[in-house]
Amino acid sequence: MQIAYIGMGIMGSAMAGNLAKAGNSVKVWNRTPDRPTINEAVNSGCTKCDTIAETVKDCSIVFTCVSDVEDLHEVLFGSGGVFESALAGSIVVDTATIGPGAAIEFSEKLNERGIKFLDAPVTGGDVGARNGTLTIMVGGNEPDFEAVLPALRSVGKNVQLCGPVGSGQALKLCNQILCAVNMVAVTEALLLAKCFGLDEKMVPEILGTGAGGSWALQNLAPRILKDDFAPGFRIKDMLKDLRLVQENATSDRGNQLELPGTNSARKLFEAAAGEVGMDSGTQAMIKGFAAAKK
Amino acid sequence: MQIAYIGMGIMGSAMAGNLAKAGNSVKVWNRTPDRPTINEAVNSGCTKCDTIAETVKDCSIVFTCVSDVEDLHEVLFGSGGVFESALAGSIVVDTATIGPGAAIEFSEKLNERGIKFLDAPVTGGDVGARNGTLTIMVGGNEPDFEAVLPALRSVGKNVQLCGPVGSGQALKLCNQILCAVNMVAVTEALLLAKCFGLDEKMVPEILGTGAGGSWALQNLAPRILKDDFAPGFRIKDMLKDLRLVQENATSDRGNQLELPGTNSARKLFEAAAGEVGMDSGTQAMIKGFAAAKK
Repeated sequence: MQIAYIGMGIMGSAMAGNLAKAGNSVKVWNRTPDRPTINEAVNSGCTKCDTIAETVKDCSIVFTCVSDVEDLHEVLFGSGGVFESALAGSIVVDTATIGPGAAIEFSEKLNERGIKFLDAPVTGGDVGARNGTLTIMVGGNEPDFEAVLPALRSVGKNVQLCGPVGSGQALKLCNQILCAVNMVAVTEALLLAKCFGLDEKMVPEILGTGAGGSWALQNLAPRILKDDFAPGFRIKDMLKDLRLVQENATSDRGNQLELPGTNSARKLFEAAAGEVGMDSGTQAMIKGFAAAKK
Repeated sequence: MQIAYIGMGIMGSAMAGNLAKAGNSVKVWNRTPDRPTINEAVNSGCTKCDTIAETVKDCSIVFTCVSDVEDLHEVLFGSGGVFESALAGSIVVDTATIGPGAAIEFSEKLNERGIKFLDAPVTGGDVGARNGTLTIMVGGNEPDFEAVLPALRSVGKNVQLCGPVGSGQALKLCNQILCAVNMVAVTEALLLAKCFGLDEKMVPEILGTGAGGSWALQNLAPRILKDDFAPGFRIKDMLKDLRLVQENATSDRGNQLELPGTNSARKLFEAAAGEVGMDSGTQAMIKGFAAAKK
């Protein structure tokens, strides 16, 4: 199958590589053409192109994975972008987190030229992208989903159609709330343990498999206790996703959904970024607590 | 071994029963003598007594499991209580959640008469108490811990000495923070899913095993979605524990530890109790959200 992949960051290049390894003919493009991560895709058999038009030419599927809503808008609708160049009938599959509102808006615009759209945000991080074990949450209609399913199965292990366009984004934002607020739980439990003079290692070790357990407690608490704040997932990206929650979480009556836990998480990530920078992993939230700074 | 067990609620009677089944001679007492739960202990071979003095007579270990700090104080230091009646050299093992401050205070008072004290709060609920699979977090000194370890092993699967007196309580409060704030995460994710028009079942089913996963998501979200608010753990007991966090979470400089996530959880549990009552399970937190009431 002829596939285009636009956006050769860590995630995009790993996914493009897996698409090529599965036997597809994959052309790739990145705004910054010499970004080192693109080599992973090229080494796996992808062909690097100079323009979006050249990349999407003759392709029935166009993957995108660019960092934010504005960047995706430029790639899709900017001069020389996908909207101008892609085949009518082709399917754009966006794997980034852009929120359901943008997904629906972009889908409708692409449809005007007969280009179809699926939102397909992923979880599982760089490791999942490399190993092809991502969870992929897809929003769109059934025939489009079926058409891209073989391709998605070569990049993800758990591929789920969640509902119409925007539904994959919606479920992804639910996931980000869980990750953000579970991190608050882990952080406050560790701070309380410290305040009580406990050996903080007992928090993940003794409590990790019980009713207080979580992925964050088992995987990120040990990193916090080793002062390892290298990113699995960056604070910068989490704050972008929590902004998308806020922008999209409006009830059918037009009220903003009240999410006090998510709100606390956002403030704590912002405070932590002020201490240790936006590129730290989300487990650096603990640096955003007043008590942790003293 | 001669063992006394004071406090025949659901947890105490199940633990007393397991102590008797393990071959110990167990005498039990409850403030309200005809409480139905006491039968579970009696049916397992425990002997029901009329007074605390009669219960603790000749016992080297005195377990307590009464509902709050004031009640435990009365049982220990009230007229005819443990302080007056227990053998010098006997060890009081309290399995309730009373906070590290009260544990240390009660321990010191008991020591005046040569009675030793271990705090040994548990997690694992009524099911864990019946099956003898509780996690038991013990605070106290090593020789006292070793002396009661065979007894504790007959009521719990995971028995851990956490540090000096109060340390078991401290770790238990960390656990309660994790449970409370993870519930905020689950609730907000479900509310966001509903706001987006998603099938909410996807939240536990698709996200439960990923980076947003938690015990609460896997075990309590499905109950919320079935409108099943029967207590595993009651809001009333959780609010008591979060009050203990607040009372005990004072740093070495005397500052109150700031715990915004725990604070949100407490307010949401209080709001939920106003809607559905204190005896609902903690998963009823969702009833405390403004958006969920409309």
